[in-house]
Amino acid sequence: MHTVMVSCVGKAGKPNATTMAWAMPTSHNPPLIAISLAPTRHSHSLIEESGEFVVNIPTLELLQAVYACGSLTGRSFDKFKKANLTAMPAKKVKAPAIRECIAHLECEVEDKLTTGDHTIFVGKILEAYADMGVFNETYDLKKARMLYHAGGNNFALLDPKNYKP
Amino acid sequence: MHTVMVSCVGKAGKPNATTMAWAMPTSHNPPLIAISLAPTRHSHSLIEESGEFVVNIPTLELLQAVYACGSLTGRSFDKFKKANLTAMPAKKVKAPAIRECIAHLECEVEDKLTTGDHTIFVGKILEAYADMGVFNETYDLKKARMLYHAGGNNFALLDPKNYKP
Repeated sequence: MHTVMVSCVGKAGKPNATTMAWAMPTSHNPPLIAISLAPTRHSHSLIEESGEFVVNIPTLELLQAVYACGSLTGRSFDKFKKANLTAMPAKKVKAPAIRECIAHLECEVEDKLTTGDHTIFVGKILEAYADMGVFNETYDLKKARMLYHAGGNNFALLDPKNYKP
Repeated sequence: MHTVMVSCVGKAGKPNATTMAWAMPTSHNPPLIAISLAPTRHSHSLIEESGEFVVNIPTLELLQAVYACGSLTGRSFDKFKKANLTAMPAKKVKAPAIRECIAHLECEVEDKLTTGDHTIFVGKILEAYADMGVFNETYDLKKARMLYHAGGNNFALLDPKNYKP
């Protein structure tokens, strides 16, 4: 599954970031994205509190940070500091974006649904931006070495070779 | 995004299959999976009607079928026939599985949510099975050449090289 980093901030103002592989787009118009987050996670409380989050797309260069943000809890750690990430002010939401990621979707919570041991947060995408030249009609997979979770502690990249039907 | 094929059957008994890249797991216990489907799609009506679907994992060998099932409509075509796919009886649901795929998740609709121009169907996984040796703790990406949608008509595979943090 495609691995993303979700950043958020609570009322106390301390930004947090978490890693997840359970995320998907869910509407073209309006543009919506759905993320699955366990209620036990610190980010779950912050997103409940603020009604906002940013979905950030990490690459291989961030593998250590991706792992750290998925393993540590923001209750005890400053994850931005611990993972050497930079909290970059977002354009439309208070939640920060993660500067080291190649693309960012600023979201406002539009709806949510309890699904077993997780919550689906549906985010309305208020702003979307990416590094130049990365996402054209075809992705440039040599530039955008995005991470895919491949079970356990294993991650993989997409092979840049393209297949067309 | 990871590309999956969803198979279903309506009351009329004609099986249908569709392709999508908007799907994600959404709970460990109980095991749930969420799929995003536009209400205009024929499969949307069939899943509404039957309350069941099967998520099937295709590989590169099925690229033509993946594309056909994502482009044609089951209202006018017998997609299994058109795409040379075999409807295999499932174990717990009336919807058929797609035999040519390497893994299958039989689902019963547990909940749904309207999200913009799509519907999220949350499926409770009643049965899950895969070809031998494909999904161990680490995926065997040489055997399981799963398809990832890379924008437009472009698909990519995961590079079998593994990265660990």
